[in-house]
Amino acid sequence: MQTHLISYDISDNNLRLKAAKFILRAGGYRIQHSVFMGTFSKSILLKLEEELLLISNLPRWTPDDSLLLLPLHEYSKRELSIIGKVPEDWGLINREIHTLVL
Amino acid sequence: MQTHLISYDISDNNLRLKAAKFILRAGGYRIQHSVFMGTFSKSILLKLEEELLLISNLPRWTPDDSLLLLPLHEYSKRELSIIGKVPEDWGLINREIHTLVL
Repeated sequence: MQTHLISYDISDNNLRLKAAKFILRAGGYRIQHSVFMGTFSKSILLKLEEELLLISNLPRWTPDDSLLLLPLHEYSKRELSIIGKVPEDWGLINREIHTLVL
Repeated sequence: MQTHLISYDISDNNLRLKAAKFILRAGGYRIQHSVFMGTFSKSILLKLEEELLLISNLPRWTPDDSLLLLPLHEYSKRELSIIGKVPEDWGLINREIHTLVL
């Protein structure tokens, strides 16, 4: 299992909704409007990457759009800090991230 | 030196601009609209964190606003992938991140 941070800049509303749906369906959690975190099995991650790549090949994807997939090391998860609103599922996210990785 | 990913959800335009200005002035690079990466010395990072905390105490900061500060491990920097637009300074960002950390 590997925890990832995924963020995107996608101008088209439908494509953005599609990307969010795939990430959430794969088991990701929304951290901020365009930032997600999740712990994914290899097979689920592969499928998600294929789905996100498909989105980037759709006509309404623009040259300014991007998706960042960042695998997180235990160090990052321990040391990350949030100023302001903590995501609703943060307890769950944290437990899932730490339980699965320990 | 420590490389960080910093992202925010800030509804007020002025506060958002202020946050971006502080992050860029500290030596960060914009990766996506609300996502930045940079390699900061301890003192610069401390100052940046204070500045961002100050922003979160200003009147136009709302309960839904947030800032995520995520220190990146070498592993994450090596394994990250981008679909679509690569940030303009990516060569610089990558060189700076890898040179400083190796």
